[in-house]
Amino acid sequence: MAIYTCRKCKAKAVINMKQHRLAFCREHFLEWMVDSTVKTIDKYHMFKHSEKILVAVSGGKDSLALWDILWKSGYQADGIYISLGIDDGIQYSHHSQQLTEKFAEARGLKLHVVNVPETYGETIPQMAERSKRGQGKPCAVCGLVKRQIMNRVAVELEYPVLATGHNLDDEVAVLLGNTLSWSLDMMQRQAPVLPSTGGFARKVKPLCRFTEREMAAYTILSQIEYIFDECPYAVGSKSATYKELLNKLEEEMPGKKLKFYTDFLQAKKDGFLDNVHQDKPDYTQTCPVCHQPTTMDGPCTFCRLVGAAY
Amino acid sequence: MAIYTCRKCKAKAVINMKQHRLAFCREHFLEWMVDSTVKTIDKYHMFKHSEKILVAVSGGKDSLALWDILWKSGYQADGIYISLGIDDGIQYSHHSQQLTEKFAEARGLKLHVVNVPETYGETIPQMAERSKRGQGKPCAVCGLVKRQIMNRVAVELEYPVLATGHNLDDEVAVLLGNTLSWSLDMMQRQAPVLPSTGGFARKVKPLCRFTEREMAAYTILSQIEYIFDECPYAVGSKSATYKELLNKLEEEMPGKKLKFYTDFLQAKKDGFLDNVHQDKPDYTQTCPVCHQPTTMDGPCTFCRLVGAAY
Repeated sequence: MAIYTCRKCKAKAVINMKQHRLAFCREHFLEWMVDSTVKTIDKYHMFKHSEKILVAVSGGKDSLALWDILWKSGYQADGIYISLGIDDGIQYSHHSQQLTEKFAEARGLKLHVVNVPETYGETIPQMAERSKRGQGKPCAVCGLVKRQIMNRVAVELEYPVLATGHNLDDEVAVLLGNTLSWSLDMMQRQAPVLPSTGGFARKVKPLCRFTEREMAAYTILSQIEYIFDECPYAVGSKSATYKELLNKLEEEMPGKKLKFYTDFLQAKKDGFLDNVHQDKPDYTQTCPVCHQPTTMDGPCTFCRLVGAAY
Repeated sequence: MAIYTCRKCKAKAVINMKQHRLAFCREHFLEWMVDSTVKTIDKYHMFKHSEKILVAVSGGKDSLALWDILWKSGYQADGIYISLGIDDGIQYSHHSQQLTEKFAEARGLKLHVVNVPETYGETIPQMAERSKRGQGKPCAVCGLVKRQIMNRVAVELEYPVLATGHNLDDEVAVLLGNTLSWSLDMMQRQAPVLPSTGGFARKVKPLCRFTEREMAAYTILSQIEYIFDECPYAVGSKSATYKELLNKLEEEMPGKKLKFYTDFLQAKKDGFLDNVHQDKPDYTQTCPVCHQPTTMDGPCTFCRLVGAAY
């Protein structure tokens, strides 16, 4: 095995990033991750130091690392944790909430907690079982619920920006999935920044250029305790298949993941999707229950799902 | 292992095609392959029974199967074999020429043979060694030489159509490669049919909807002798990596290869690439040596490569 030395101080490296031809010691790797995130934030005009940011934290490595990096870089970032009630077996929700609260306390950061079963009377798996969207897997229901809550809290508490911990592997898996089915309208909507539109906070993904491996290294080397287990429902998903394929590709062609993603963003900027007919969801109505934008007359999909009184 | 029965005659099946939910006995599989090819030819308006077709045959399973199918379906298909002089070790060229000649004789078919080292004084690996294009791998030089010879023979001998044995795996590997690098201009040019333009014969790929596995089954069950070995230079190519990934994908999601390809063709038909600025190679000049279309003043790239006298 080759021994790598830190690009900055020539000490023994703890990580070598083939695709960047870069190796670092612990200290300089953490520094590089923070600096690179700030560069990404600036490059895609995600937000400024003067803006209040709401970070969606799950207790996993990516979202805790994101919050840590934003805090270290002096951004005004508060957290939101949504407890989904996935507590059979490994006590996934219970565990991840504890870790998130511990993380916030240690840094004196403000954390908003929304407990789904307490607020809506049902856990996500229970909602999924009752709903058409949830047949087989609760992931679609879970996504819907999380999106609604995150956005509602951001808008109600006046956070103009909602940040999520999606990393490069997440983004390229989605991109590959959309590409393999030529879902051009989905491709149009995939971006590091989704600008704020009537009733929706701006959505940003500051970790979109870091691989899963880099994020794991950051979290471990920062001694951040996070929930190791994946959500028990994520196992065997299409996204997991795509990630596996992309890892094989990256092994053969280091840097291919990042290039696939950035070349896509460039091609989009150059207009290759401008001609595509888009069935844009038309969020011009307001839900009479939760007051969030909706495409429907009457209560929105979320309020119908949770059976909110009209 | 499940036992499958033939969809048509209920005899024991020799092949099950998961992605089509179709199983067949030997006889009805061969019949289905021939019928499906004719359907593909008609669907993409490739050619009619009244047109003379030149089939590019390498001695491999795909091109011999294609020639066999066209012959069985009553098309006027002659063959062209290009001997590349790749004869170190396994005598790749020598062997494949023998098999091709044997195939043609057995069916009373006309075969044109062009011997590269005899005609141009050098084998493909020798040309590649001398040329900038050939650094490391002779594949780019080989492609250039084969394209020039195939088209020249087609035009000189008045074949309006040039047919190649590219199968679905070949096509999706190219498509995936072009997609991963967002080479939109290359994607624009990928199609089952490239219409004839000044000085170029129409190019068609009648096997573009069959997988490698279906083609291997057709050739083996038809008892066609073909060269098993891949070209020794093809090993470890990017295309081989993409094919491996796509096979893994197909295993998890049967039918995904064909759907990736046909959805791409549909999206292109719907115009998603119409807006792309294309640096179309401008083949409006004529090479003073070989009289083929070229983008250059003076001799074409091929004639420069082989050092043809001006």
